Amino acid sequence: MNNGGILLTFHFELIKECKFSKARLGKLYTPHGTIDTPTFMPVGTQATVKAMGPDELKDIGAQIILSNTYHLFIRPGHKLIEKAGGLHSFMNWDRSILTDSGGFQVFSLNELRKITEEGVEFKSHLDGTKHFFTPERVIEIQQSLGADIIMAFDECIPYPCEKEYALKSMERTFRWLKRCHEAHNNTKQALFGIVQGGAFKDLRIESAQKTTSIDLPGYAIGGLSVGEPKEIMNEMIEYIIPYLPNNKPRYLMGVGSPDSLIEGAIRGIDMFDCVLPTRMARNGTVLTSNGKLVIRNASYGKDFRPIDENCDCYACKNFSRAYIRHLIKAREILGSRLTTIHNLRFLQNLMKDIREAIKNDSLLNFRGDFFNKLGYDK
Amino acid sequence: MNNGGILLTFHFELIKECKFSKARLGKLYTPHGTIDTPTFMPVGTQATVKAMGPDELKDIGAQIILSNTYHLFIRPGHKLIEKAGGLHSFMNWDRSILTDSGGFQVFSLNELRKITEEGVEFKSHLDGTKHFFTPERVIEIQQSLGADIIMAFDECIPYPCEKEYALKSMERTFRWLKRCHEAHNNTKQALFGIVQGGAFKDLRIESAQKTTSIDLPGYAIGGLSVGEPKEIMNEMIEYIIPYLPNNKPRYLMGVGSPDSLIEGAIRGIDMFDCVLPTRMARNGTVLTSNGKLVIRNASYGKDFRPIDENCDCYACKNFSRAYIRHLIKAREILGSRLTTIHNLRFLQNLMKDIREAIKNDSLLNFRGDFFNKLGYDK
Repeated sequence: MNNGGILLTFHFELIKECKFSKARLGKLYTPHGTIDTPTFMPVGTQATVKAMGPDELKDIGAQIILSNTYHLFIRPGHKLIEKAGGLHSFMNWDRSILTDSGGFQVFSLNELRKITEEGVEFKSHLDGTKHFFTPERVIEIQQSLGADIIMAFDECIPYPCEKEYALKSMERTFRWLKRCHEAHNNTKQALFGIVQGGAFKDLRIESAQKTTSIDLPGYAIGGLSVGEPKEIMNEMIEYIIPYLPNNKPRYLMGVGSPDSLIEGAIRGIDMFDCVLPTRMARNGTVLTSNGKLVIRNASYGKDFRPIDENCDCYACKNFSRAYIRHLIKAREILGSRLTTIHNLRFLQNLMKDIREAIKNDSLLNFRGDFFNKLGYDK
Repeated sequence: MNNGGILLTFHFELIKECKFSKARLGKLYTPHGTIDTPTFMPVGTQATVKAMGPDELKDIGAQIILSNTYHLFIRPGHKLIEKAGGLHSFMNWDRSILTDSGGFQVFSLNELRKITEEGVEFKSHLDGTKHFFTPERVIEIQQSLGADIIMAFDECIPYPCEKEYALKSMERTFRWLKRCHEAHNNTKQALFGIVQGGAFKDLRIESAQKTTSIDLPGYAIGGLSVGEPKEIMNEMIEYIIPYLPNNKPRYLMGVGSPDSLIEGAIRGIDMFDCVLPTRMARNGTVLTSNGKLVIRNASYGKDFRPIDENCDCYACKNFSRAYIRHLIKAREILGSRLTTIHNLRFLQNLMKDIREAIKNDSLLNFRGDFFNKLGYDK
């Protein structure tokens, strides 16, 4: 209940605001290190960023990763992780971690879950066993996991969604936030609230007002990038941002395509996460300074250049497109590793470029150059 | 045809013979570095040791790896690898490589192949396309791949096998060796001949005599560990060894269980390879100084000790059994990586211990201690 103590270990320093956009340069201090914002958090769903070891994550420059409460609760169980000394110790990662609340995963189970005011009953996707998540339970689980930043239990509605349901859900998400806040008593973990409200301007604003009525160390925007056009996502962000306090970090959940990272930063977002860059990598699609490249394509079969000549990652410094294509086609683990290393390094470098551009008040120019050069799908 | 030049870049130095067994300590000099023998070669079938990067292979101490001609011929094709500057360059491995001749794989295709005196017609396991391997073709492919050590094209017969066929096959394998030797004209690659003859003492001796009648830089024993009891394998090795020249390396193909490495070294073998330690690793079975450990077992669920407290590998220094078990059960790539790193390091350390024991003339005692302590399946 008391967030006073957390200021000792957790706070956000707003270093600079961009002159020509809402973008901000900041530093997020956590018990496990400092994070330069805007930042992209690689996703380690099952206590590992797929294909990567902790040393490689450090090599690509990750300062914080995200892990999923639902998955860890189901397997291996939060009590085991607590017994191991928490998630940092369990997975041997000594930098910052954020855990989501499991809300998104539980609501994705569709036929397998039932929502009441009290919480959500759901069946495990692994063995069908029944479980019940309440706001209090989700806080308890996240306290066992021991991440630096934990998320309130929320409902993530699909797009499109009836306004009546979006309102009802947004109000319940706020009641759940109050219960999470009440249940939260660990001064070493920062609890973030989540703004919901679907694709409805008034609901988004109302949700932002309600959420920020509770003094929390950070605020997230949830329920975007769930199927709506990117224009709507960007609009929603624009509606919400003015209602979020300037001195607290803002986290746009589940977003991580290069264009959305730039657009989000321009609109004042400080933190992002997404599984897409790592999932794409394992399927053989890599991000480059000249656009996306599907390494499986026959045209790369005899291409002995690196994935991206402008990249400084381990994959680009040591291996050719032809070799990586061979590995991906032959379903060799090293293929997934190299493409994952590359995509994550690409995004870390992109975030660094974004921060540099904010410093120089040139982020709008940076966006123009980026899209002209690359033609990333918007 | 000319093996004179190869002495400049390839030779075997016999350092010491064990007083109480046939074990030998040696050094194998190749164009890509020196190998301490007896040695175990990790297998990189498709131009990658599964789950491992080249730096990790160096970290575990590998001085030489094996790669498979058949697989590389099928995908990505030896011409592509030649264009990449050879296998070393293609996979970014600057230490030694041995390629097999494809014989074992082609004969494993069973229904898909047809043997004549000229060679073997077979269908690709990937797309059913027809190909024809002759001794000359196999040498040509291996020259494109550019390994330090290449193998003659042989037939590996199953166990059990009719003596009549074993004789016919052994004689053909020798005629094929002569053709390989004739076709081989690359002085930077060392061609090894292969002793066959199934589980028949007289055929094995005859094959050893025939094979060594050609002056080659090394000799291999093939067609063992194909289903016969280990006692028969060890007997066959004992029959063959006296017919192999002392000043040339001896390679026992496809053998790599800890007990067989010790038994083989005692009988005078210098080189081993096997996919089993890496395959076992991916399935979650690890080798330890106290015997095999099936990390999937529930008993390791809350076991926060390393795989092997006596091991110095990256997995043992950084992660618990409980975490690695979680990764393996959750089918996470990092799980396969950590168990592979461990098993390969375990075998490198075992070979080092074997070499140390040969130096001290204590290999027989070492064997006794090893089996008493571990109870490895013999």
